[in-house]
Amino acid sequence: MTEKFDLATVYVSDAQYNRNIFFDTSPQAVRLYLLYNHWFMQMLVYVFIIINLALALFEDPAVVPLPIWATSTIEIVCLSAFTVRIVHYAKVIPKDKFWKDPKNICIIIIVTLSFIDLTIYGALKTSGYFGIRWSRVLRPLLLVNVTEGRQLRRAFRSIRNALPQISYVFLLFMFSVLVFSLMALKLFGKRGLFTIDGSPYFTDYLDIVFDLYVLVTTANSPDVMMPAYNYSVFFTIFFILYIVINTYTFMSFFLAVVYNNYKKYLKEEVRQLVKARRYKMCRAFSLLQETRGEGGEPVVTQAKWNRLVKLVKPNISIAHRELLWSVLDDQNKGHIGKFAFVQLADLLSIQVITVKSQAHPIQICFPSLYNSSASRFIRYMVHHRMFVYIYDLIILVNAVFIGLDEENPVVSNAEWGFLALYMLEIILKLYSTEPRAFFARHHFWNWFDTIIVVSALFGTIINSALKHSGGYTSRQILDIVFILRVLRLIRLVDSIKRFRAIINTLIKIGPTILIFGQLIVVVYYIFAMVGMELFKGKVHFFEPNSTSPDQEYCGNPLLKGTTFAKLNYCKNNFNNVISSFIVLLELTVVNQWHDILYIYRSKSALLTSGFTAVTHVSARIFFVLFHIVVVIIIINIFVAFILEAFLVEY
Amino acid sequence: MTEKFDLATVYVSDAQYNRNIFFDTSPQAVRLYLLYNHWFMQMLVYVFIIINLALALFEDPAVVPLPIWATSTIEIVCLSAFTVRIVHYAKVIPKDKFWKDPKNICIIIIVTLSFIDLTIYGALKTSGYFGIRWSRVLRPLLLVNVTEGRQLRRAFRSIRNALPQISYVFLLFMFSVLVFSLMALKLFGKRGLFTIDGSPYFTDYLDIVFDLYVLVTTANSPDVMMPAYNYSVFFTIFFILYIVINTYTFMSFFLAVVYNNYKKYLKEEVRQLVKARRYKMCRAFSLLQETRGEGGEPVVTQAKWNRLVKLVKPNISIAHRELLWSVLDDQNKGHIGKFAFVQLADLLSIQVITVKSQAHPIQICFPSLYNSSASRFIRYMVHHRMFVYIYDLIILVNAVFIGLDEENPVVSNAEWGFLALYMLEIILKLYSTEPRAFFARHHFWNWFDTIIVVSALFGTIINSALKHSGGYTSRQILDIVFILRVLRLIRLVDSIKRFRAIINTLIKIGPTILIFGQLIVVVYYIFAMVGMELFKGKVHFFEPNSTSPDQEYCGNPLLKGTTFAKLNYCKNNFNNVISSFIVLLELTVVNQWHDILYIYRSKSALLTSGFTAVTHVSARIFFVLFHIVVVIIIINIFVAFILEAFLVEY
Ligand code: NA
Repeated sequence: MTEKFDLATVYVSDAQYNRNIFFDTSPQAVRLYLLYNHWFMQMLVYVFIIINLALALFEDPAVVPLPIWATSTIEIVCLSAFTVRIVHYAKVIPKDKFWKDPKNICIIIIVTLSFIDLTIYGALKTSGYFGIRWSRVLRPLLLVNVTEGRQLRRAFRSIRNALPQISYVFLLFMFSVLVFSLMALKLFGKRGLFTIDGSPYFTDYLDIVFDLYVLVTTANSPDVMMPAYNYSVFFTIFFILYIVINTYTFMSFFLAVVYNNYKKYLKEEVRQLVKARRYKMCRAFSLLQETRGEGGEPVVTQAKWNRLVKLVKPNISIAHRELLWSVLDDQNKGHIGKFAFVQLADLLSIQVITVKSQAHPIQICFPSLYNSSASRFIRYMVHHRMFVYIYDLIILVNAVFIGLDEENPVVSNAEWGFLALYMLEIILKLYSTEPRAFFARHHFWNWFDTIIVVSALFGTIINSALKHSGGYTSRQILDIVFILRVLRLIRLVDSIKRFRAIINTLIKIGPTILIFGQLIVVVYYIFAMVGMELFKGKVHFFEPNSTSPDQEYCGNPLLKGTTFAKLNYCKNNFNNVISSFIVLLELTVVNQWHDILYIYRSKSALLTSGFTAVTHVSARIFFVLFHIVVVIIIINIFVAFILEAFLVEY
Repeated sequence: MTEKFDLATVYVSDAQYNRNIFFDTSPQAVRLYLLYNHWFMQMLVYVFIIINLALALFEDPAVVPLPIWATSTIEIVCLSAFTVRIVHYAKVIPKDKFWKDPKNICIIIIVTLSFIDLTIYGALKTSGYFGIRWSRVLRPLLLVNVTEGRQLRRAFRSIRNALPQISYVFLLFMFSVLVFSLMALKLFGKRGLFTIDGSPYFTDYLDIVFDLYVLVTTANSPDVMMPAYNYSVFFTIFFILYIVINTYTFMSFFLAVVYNNYKKYLKEEVRQLVKARRYKMCRAFSLLQETRGEGGEPVVTQAKWNRLVKLVKPNISIAHRELLWSVLDDQNKGHIGKFAFVQLADLLSIQVITVKSQAHPIQICFPSLYNSSASRFIRYMVHHRMFVYIYDLIILVNAVFIGLDEENPVVSNAEWGFLALYMLEIILKLYSTEPRAFFARHHFWNWFDTIIVVSALFGTIINSALKHSGGYTSRQILDIVFILRVLRLIRLVDSIKRFRAIINTLIKIGPTILIFGQLIVVVYYIFAMVGMELFKGKVHFFEPNSTSPDQEYCGNPLLKGTTFAKLNYCKNNFNNVISSFIVLLELTVVNQWHDILYIYRSKSALLTSGFTAVTHVSARIFFVLFHIVVVIIIINIFVAFILEAFLVEY
């Protein structure tokens, strides 16, 4: 019987958390499965994945260099952990299911390849040869496959499903770019025009294709048009048509295709989830069911149901459990049928906010004081609208004071006054509202306010103490205090109903935006690894107070006089994983990207590095590929997601 | 009776063309109304509007200067035409309806203001004073109001409806920008950092707000971040958060709000149109109805119906009319009820493609020749798939030849070969398909092909003749020939089914894109008029072969050494309406716009012009306003439209 309850518990919690694992139902497999789903094991896997990804900080080219033996040892530990995890998983589910799941095959291949790569790299390094850690590109895929990041995997699946449609539009778009480029070659190639840096304008077909591709991202507008425009105003027609068709229409088409697929896929996904959830609840029901009377419908008794709920959610309150039962057994029969039973998973997911009108602690300790007319007046005042308006006004005045020079003694003293006012507000509110109700989980702004104000108070005190003790002010503490002060202003938006609706939408979609964060990390990591191997050490950054003469051209004589050096872009390099991520972010924003990759695409610059023209082309391919993957696909999925979330929530 | 038919005709054609005018139903008003809707009158109005708008080309600052008396006379003629039109309209509809319609009030005000402005300007000019033609800003509004451009007016209404929601999101967005700016001031202001041009970094609050607003458009990324990034890598967190929240999330929110409103409004609009159409058809029915027998339902006889249809659509063929009747009177009763009658407007809008399998003219003239086995073989061949493949291959080879140097004799001779092949294709197709079927209206690609190939043939012959006669080749003719040659390649996409679907969607939404074109013209025109008054003559363009020393700094010594002059942006000015439109297009694309408006926002540059700091601020306001109106609102409406069209059509 216990085994049956164990199994039913697993089914219900799988249904509740939308897990889709076809585990073995033998008792020992079920116990292993429970261990597999334990929060500690899941957290451990995440920790190992983060450590594994973070290795890029310490491996060559490193932010903080560590010896190869150290990083290799850590990586071996991580890979072993993933191996243990996958072996554990293999024990839980039937053999045939295990080998049919591409996720598992993927993990096994990645772990194996990583071990092979480590061995080869170690051998090459010890014998003094040059080696590339190519398996680092595969690391972020573990984040997708090893973790139970179902949403992340779903996002990837959604991309995969949209790919065929995207590629048709993309091919047509590329055809359009190629045709326009050919037209540009014929129209401008023989006119003897020159670009601003003196090179011939639109004479090489592949260069034109690249330039016009960049124009789609708007990054080289209007520069790419200027020579033609200076020659004749009629040539702007060519560029206007190009921009309308390719930059606006096709880019909107991409968004439309992605959005369309996203919506379709989302619906299908939700349908499948509901179906799977129902199936699991039916399995759980059939384990606990008993038949009442002759030919009666099978039912589950309240006793069994109570035991199950206690197993699924050990810390559920009795009141909450009884509320759930009364919802299901609305006719008070003492047992429920299949139809009512399958709703349990949904009911458990609903957050029940128990608003108990408990008495205020002060009221309990000092009832006469708390109920005195003065006290009642204070409580009335705090709950009055004017109280909110007055504090909004205080915040506005505070905003002006923040904008003023904080070294002025009036301003810095006023800050104490504002802090006192904010503390008073919190105390007054705590006095007139029951503290547990005030700090209920769904009262976002109360939490926000209290944390910000109390931290600001501590920060200001520490800062002031430091100042008075040695006359020295820690810049870091001051920065934090400034940030806290400014954050306090955000509270203003909560007073305006329309803004609150928008902010609530933002807060609701917050968690899913984090999923996109993971998606971006996966893609950035892959491109960063490739980028570092291709471009590391090409550009150097010199601290602003450096006196090195190389500073002017980022330590690469080939950069003398280039826009890249002139704009002081030296820190935009692939010399370590952090800079690489920042460069990739700048490429995502798609501005000046042709300037950022100037050094990487300039033929002469790469010739000396022994890369010859091959890298010249590969650099362009690298950046165009990045644009396609990140801007055309991922950013559009992000926009599609915001669009749909907004249409549903707002 | 005739009067009744006239009135019914008007109702039906109003229903058919979705006109919503509550005209007077007296016989003479109906006759005036018919005149009002006459295609010639409508075209005339369009012509006057285009002339009125085109006046900007000839008025100071002019592309082609004309004396003031000439432009004023033309404008008076145009304004008089609009006056006549509105008086005509006033005669058609009841007085109270006329004065309730904001459209009419708008026209009267604009025309009156224009007359006043013209008088003042004329008086000022003749007495030698300085005057501004401020009423020119109002001109494009006539395009919206005077013409029967219902779709354009609908687009404007759709914007007006979305405005409240957009403004809430915009206010929150601006609040976010202001808070981030305050934080930037506190974090970076006291660190003594400098931008690339040596000015202090992030020390003035309003400058920070402007810089961060520009960052939302991505135009100054990554430059705005570089000083902070060079100082410490941690500061990039500030910019990353800023970009994620403001550039991505808020901009997606704007799209979501616009899209949401667009969808909602579109549905409501369609519902209203259907309702109004039904109402008008019921009015027409009640004019022509007669009751059959005792207590029978009112009906319209076939005779009356025929007369009505002949009046509504004089050039309808008898076969087509009889087809329509048989659809409505499916039980062959000789009369139809109200339900069938109201469908007439919809039926008339449907294009009936009469595919008559007519015999080929050659078959009629030379039947034995046309039916000979050789002739049959040719026709079989032309309709075979291989025929399409072979011509696709020819086009591909042609594409390579176009890419080669056309001065090579082999290439220029090959062109004759290709032309011959294309002509052969058209002749073969015309031989195997009935010519009228081949050139049916819905056969887009046949028309496209024939026009392109025949024009290319003529162009090439003329070009060749010119070359042989005087050795002189007209660059313009050559340009046209090149364009035609490249356009021929587009035919390739028709061979691939997936591409054809996308292209068909594009062709279908083409007309509506033209509506957006008008919308853009209206907004551009207004901004161009204001921009010209504010910034004309500040920057001068010198022809590339000019030897003037002023060329280096666009004729304005204050531009010496600025990015604007260095990038050779001199032609990006507001010196005439065409340049203004091109600058506005560049601002729409939102790249380098802070550089483009450099001259206009640089304090020192404007001080000398006597504008002082007021214009400095107003210039920023001008450009930010333009960004809000065009990029945030209009481009988003365009994207929303493409999105919806794509989801519906594809
Ligand atoms: Na840009």
